[in-house]
This record gives sequence, structure tokens and C-alpha cells, in this order.
Amino acid sequence: MSYLDHIWACNNFDPADYVPFEIDGARVGWVRRDNVRYLAAHDAVFEIAESCVALVPALEAVEDRSAALAGVVDRLAADGTLPKPRSELYPLTEAFNDPPFALIERSAVPFFGARALGVHMNGYVRRDGDIHMWVARRARDKTSYPGMLDNMVAGGQPHGLGLRENMIKECGEEAGIPEEIAQHVIPVGFIDYAHESEDGAKPDRQYCYDLELPANFMPIAADGEVDEFMLWPLEQVAETIRETFEFKFNCNLVILDFMVRHGYLDPDTEPDYTDLCRGLHASKG
Amino acid sequence: MSYLDHIWACNNFDPADYVPFEIDGARVGWVRRDNVRYLAAHDAVFEIAESCVALVPALEAVEDRSAALAGVVDRLAADGTLPKPRSELYPLTEAFNDPPFALIERSAVPFFGARALGVHMNGYVRRDGDIHMWVARRARDKTSYPGMLDNMVAGGQPHGLGLRENMIKECGEEAGIPEEIAQHVIPVGFIDYAHESEDGAKPDRQYCYDLELPANFMPIAADGEVDEFMLWPLEQVAETIRETFEFKFNCNLVILDFMVRHGYLDPDTEPDYTDLCRGLHASKG
Repeated sequence: MSYLDHIWACNNFDPADYVPFEIDGARVGWVRRDNVRYLAAHDAVFEIAESCVALVPALEAVEDRSAALAGVVDRLAADGTLPKPRSELYPLTEAFNDPPFALIERSAVPFFGARALGVHMNGYVRRDGDIHMWVARRARDKTSYPGMLDNMVAGGQPHGLGLRENMIKECGEEAGIPEEIAQHVIPVGFIDYAHESEDGAKPDRQYCYDLELPANFMPIAADGEVDEFMLWPLEQVAETIRETFEFKFNCNLVILDFMVRHGYLDPDTEPDYTDLCRGLHASKG
Repeated sequence: MSYLDHIWACNNFDPADYVPFEIDGARVGWVRRDNVRYLAAHDAVFEIAESCVALVPALEAVEDRSAALAGVVDRLAADGTLPKPRSELYPLTEAFNDPPFALIERSAVPFFGARALGVHMNGYVRRDGDIHMWVARRARDKTSYPGMLDNMVAGGQPHGLGLRENMIKECGEEAGIPEEIAQHVIPVGFIDYAHESEDGAKPDRQYCYDLELPANFMPIAADGEVDEFMLWPLEQVAETIRETFEFKFNCNLVILDFMVRHGYLDPDTEPDYTDLCRGLHASKG
């Protein structure tokens, strides 16, 4: 296998299997063709055509749209079509800071194929100039991707919180990183991909942060999301990515982006350099 | 104006004004529609159709293609259609390290709208944690972009040289950076854009390098390409980019990429963050 396998794995979404989900003429998501039938009963909320699902134009205010969607999500959760709500609202939007078209329960975001935003942080230390990266192993009892390797800290981006604010909060919750250290996180760009999972489409964007930690800092698996933290030489991280699918799918891209930015991948020697760099920001979703 | 103006200025190429230039079925460049007539006389070299200029299939070997193109370029230079040859060969290729379809004289690259590769380096020092960037002012007697601001070191990528090798060579020639310092350049990705200038299309790729310099290092304008080097706080560089077109067009993108990677632009506060990040790697060419 090669690094590129992770670009492809993250971009397994095929628009042909979906219809666009539109609000006010803008595409805000994708509904899988075989899921459209679950929305047909809700004709006060959705207009359903062959090639499109749209929110009815009568729902003009963000509050009204959000309330109507919440009603549908509650009923789909009640009959088991959707997972149990997590009481966390995500914006239906194009980019962070864009005004949302509506807010929607986090657990329903993949069903509607909306772009979810998240924050991922690569925590590292330098030893004799060499980078060692903190790697997390997800708790084995987590619902999603149990036991897989993960970035040191990562989380979904809820509505109403700043990205940095969220990043610092997650640093404390997931790895016990105190605010006086976490505040040194550096925003370094984002990765885009269009993934398909059992839940639906995930045309997501993960904002990436670097944090160089003191050499003697020890993370603490504070909230039970993580089983253990391991400090690996970057070469070991790279090898794991190059040869396995042990990292949760999108973490591979976040680390590849780190490796590009820190000169660990070199265009003189990495034959897939162009496709890797382009693949980190390409998305069909 | 805004940072985004530079993305647009670098991407002013409009494919509608050009026809593809193909070799062996692959598009390797673009010829401006009103320039196609200069190639019509050379029917042993080119097949010319309404919507395409192609190298004749009989030219199969890279050497034969390169020789045929050299003959055309010499004649176009002799009658003043093309600038004087610089005796530097560029590959017609998709990406660095891909085998070239042919080699072509550097001065003819824009006429054929071929992707040129280059290397750009942002040299900087840290003072009390703050980044100061070395900025070059191009010589006022340079043919192209005289007197404009530039990255500390930059150069075109000729055929047969490694990128790092070229970067280190240019560091010595343009800024008097000795090899023992220049070897610490870090490859950090590339920018893509599709520019149109008087000479033709430039769907170019610039490989970007960072070099943190010793605080007391003083560059020397060694080869006369540069009038002066100035060490500016990054804020002054950013302001110059945000408010002027004083930097040569593509240097703005190289520095914006630096600002993204070093956390100087923040998605929490920069309203154009998405378009900026995407715009550094988008190209219609």
C-alpha cells in the first residue's frame, strides 16, 4: 500500500449514489438515494424531486428551519432510523463563520450529508531536533472506530464556539492539557475530504492545529475517550500510515499534512508528492 | 483590497482564449488562439485543428520531439516572435520527477503555455518569538518585474537538477547563503496557479521552502538579480500584501502559504480563510 491509499479511503464518496439536499437554492448536503423515502412522509418540511431534496421555501427563518428539521430528526430517531440525538447542534453551512442555513442535531449530520467541521491537533515534542508525535488509541468501548489510532486531540466543531476555543477545550477534556499550554496551538490550515460511511455522506473539513509540547509533558486520558497515549518517533508514525489502516481514516490525512508542512515528505524523493498534496484539499462533496 | 486579490491576480488565465497543446494525447500546455498562426508553417512538427495544437505522432522519441521544438523555437526567436533563448531546458511534464514528454527552451515555455516549475524560499528569523522575514527587491534593470518585491530566494526549475539542489544553488547565487546554512531549507508543499502574462499562459507550480536563518545572518545580493534585502516584521510583510501589489504576483501566494502554515492567518478571525487556503492550490491550467 502507499500513503495515497488514505487519500482514496477518505474520498470514497460517490455523488451518483446521492441526491443534493438544498436549502434556499444552495446545496447544504447529500441524501443517499435509498434514504430519501424516510423523508417522504414529512411533506410540510421537504420537497422531494427525482434529483433533489429541498427544504420547503415556506421555511424561511433559520429558527423555523432548525425546528422543522429537529422534529423530523426526533421522529427518525424514535423509529431507529437515526442514532440517538447527542444534544449538540451543528450548523448547515459552507465554511466556518458563514451564517448557517439551519442548525441540525449532530447525530443526523451524516444522514443529511452535511459538511461537518472539526478540529484535529498534532501534539509533538522535539528530541535532539527529531520530531516525536503523541498518538492516541481510541477507547475500545467507543461507538465509532473503537481501538483505532487517533490524533492526540480531535473533536467535532459545535455551533457557537470558536475553533481555537473548541480546540483548547478538547485539549483539556481529552488529553489533560492545561490551558496555559493548550493556548499555544497554532492553526495551520485544513483538510477536506468526502467520505462515505454506513451513516451516510461525510463531506467534512477538519481544521488542523500543531502544538509543540514540553519534552516532559505527559498527557492524561481525562474523559475516557482515549485508552492510552503513546509518544512515537515521527518515522514510526509515518510507517504505520504507509503500511496500515490502524489510524482512524481522517487522522491519516491530518498527519500527512503535518508531514508535508514539516518537510518530512520531500518532492525530490516522494513519487506521490503532487497527488498527496492535492489530495489533502480535494473533495467531491 | 484584500489578500484574495492576489489569488485572483495569479489566476487570470482564461482557457477560452487558448487551445490545448498536446503530445501523445496528453495536454502539456496551452497556445493562445492568436498565436496558433505562428505554428502553421511548421507542419512537419504540428498538427493544427480548430480546437487543438498537437505534436505530429511521428515524433515519438523525447529527443526527436525536443529537437523539432528547438528548431521551431529558434526560427520564432529569429523573427522576433519569441524572446532570445536562454539556453536553459525545461521539461514538458505534469509534475516534478514525471518523465518529460519533451524538453523545451525556457524562453518558449509561456508561448506554449507549459507548466513551469520553480522553487521559492521564505527566509526568516525569530526575534523574541516573532517572525521577521527577509524580503528582496528585484534589480531595477531586470527584464521581468523590475524593482518589485520578491521572496528572499526564488528560481525556475531547470531539467536535470533536484529541487533541493536547485534551491541551495539559488541560495548561494541570489543571496550569498552558504551551503552549510542553505542545506537546512525545509520543503513545505507547493502553490499552483494559472497566470496569463503578455508572453502567454503560465500554469505554474512553485515548490515552497522555509529557511530559518541565524539572527545575525546578512544576505548578499550576489548575482545582481536583487537590489537589496530587507528584514521586515511579518506584520509589515502581511500589510504590504494586504494593501498593495508591490510583490511580484506569485510571491504573494508563497507568503500567504507561509502565513497559513505558521498560524499567522487564523480561521477564527480571517473571513477569507477558506478561499485563501483553497486558492493557493487551485488552478484552471
